[in-house]
Amino acid sequence: MSKLTIIKVGGKIVEEEQSLEQLLKDFSQIEGYKILVHGGGRSATKLAERLGIESRMVNGRRITDLETLKVVTMVYGGLVNKNIVAKLQSLGINALGLTGADMNMILSDKRPVKDIDYGYAGDVKKVNINILSSLIKQGIIPVLAPLTHDGKGNMLNTNADTIAGETAKALAHAFDVSLVYCFEKKGVLMNESDENSVIPQINKAEFERLVKQGVIQGGMIPKLHNAFNSIDAGVKEVIITSATELGKNTGTRINGE
Amino acid sequence: MSKLTIIKVGGKIVEEEQSLEQLLKDFSQIEGYKILVHGGGRSATKLAERLGIESRMVNGRRITDLETLKVVTMVYGGLVNKNIVAKLQSLGINALGLTGADMNMILSDKRPVKDIDYGYAGDVKKVNINILSSLIKQGIIPVLAPLTHDGKGNMLNTNADTIAGETAKALAHAFDVSLVYCFEKKGVLMNESDENSVIPQINKAEFERLVKQGVIQGGMIPKLHNAFNSIDAGVKEVIITSATELGKNTGTRINGE
Repeated sequence: MSKLTIIKVGGKIVEEEQSLEQLLKDFSQIEGYKILVHGGGRSATKLAERLGIESRMVNGRRITDLETLKVVTMVYGGLVNKNIVAKLQSLGINALGLTGADMNMILSDKRPVKDIDYGYAGDVKKVNINILSSLIKQGIIPVLAPLTHDGKGNMLNTNADTIAGETAKALAHAFDVSLVYCFEKKGVLMNESDENSVIPQINKAEFERLVKQGVIQGGMIPKLHNAFNSIDAGVKEVIITSATELGKNTGTRINGE
Repeated sequence: MSKLTIIKVGGKIVEEEQSLEQLLKDFSQIEGYKILVHGGGRSATKLAERLGIESRMVNGRRITDLETLKVVTMVYGGLVNKNIVAKLQSLGINALGLTGADMNMILSDKRPVKDIDYGYAGDVKKVNINILSSLIKQGIIPVLAPLTHDGKGNMLNTNADTIAGETAKALAHAFDVSLVYCFEKKGVLMNESDENSVIPQINKAEFERLVKQGVIQGGMIPKLHNAFNSIDAGVKEVIITSATELGKNTGTRINGE
């Protein structure tokens, strides 16, 4: 099977023109088939503020009422996505911006209301990758926005890490998928206060040992659970690294061995 | 060659939820290959207003400074486009939202500054239709936003009528293209004050005669010039009709005979 690299970026990297341009240059240098999945950083919050719409976050997730849905559809699906596509085109990359609604690529369920009503937030139900897979093989580079749809005419706000993970799992049947999560740190650290204490490689047994020892904690635990979940579903490798280190073969490599 | 219908809609139809839903239902009933090209109505102006950005129009065209470019990219490329795509998906239409930057589909030149600096406004230079054509044949229904790019990393605001016309001309080599411009009136009228005086069919000689007689005037003249221009470039027929009459075989039919 051919290699496919799926890169997920978000946060400040996407917000700031200069860091975004560097990232896209690095992305354009990656060989073989590739997909870029982007978040929106704080750009949606900023636009909502200018429009006098209150941004409410619970457990790091945005409460998406109808007005907020319009904002994220504009910012993620329009401004951020098309800005990235135009910039990649200028670098000779034949990018295609997509949301989950386009070609019915990612169908979600509106998150059920339990303790919290997240509003128009989507939990991924199904990824249809046949046409996507055929486009990739024709040299098209998909750029995925963190939006899906419910099949009933509504867009849904959907976590970019989830989009990347679910797409990687669905494409694992057709490609040797390498899934790369870019974030602010250089990888999974042995010592939170030492940026250079990156664990180069980790498997499930080591992960569980390090969680027990308290070395790995907080937000890194669900991130790694997701990574192992992808590996179990057939994704070849998951890499957690810094956006500034893209293509440098650094960061933490998660594998199934 | 197979038949391809390209429908262009804009104005109030796109702005108002109810009329948009009816239009999309009518569109979903059209048989054979099809493309939808949409404008943005006044939605960009409304968002600009809320953000305190002044909308300046000259000769009916928007002056697109950098802030305005962000607004139209959000509204046309994000909100309007994805809303249409999600609604079409709910009607069983496998829609794909696109700007000219996506798959490098429509490359434009930033309009040269003569008397007026239109800012980030695009004059279409080249339409790349190979991949688009292959997608259409796979059952995908493209939904085109009125945005193109310059190949240098910038999105450009581009008139939706132009997008429809240029796409029709480029696809005329691969399909029997029928280009339908939807607008507020029922067609080209013999008598401006009589909504039912629609001219059912018109060729170039008749058009020139009616312009001389003062029957056809104002904004309808460039509209029809564009229509004949498309016909000359191989488009099979151009129809000018009301959005509410879509698929009813009414309106004015422009042909080359």
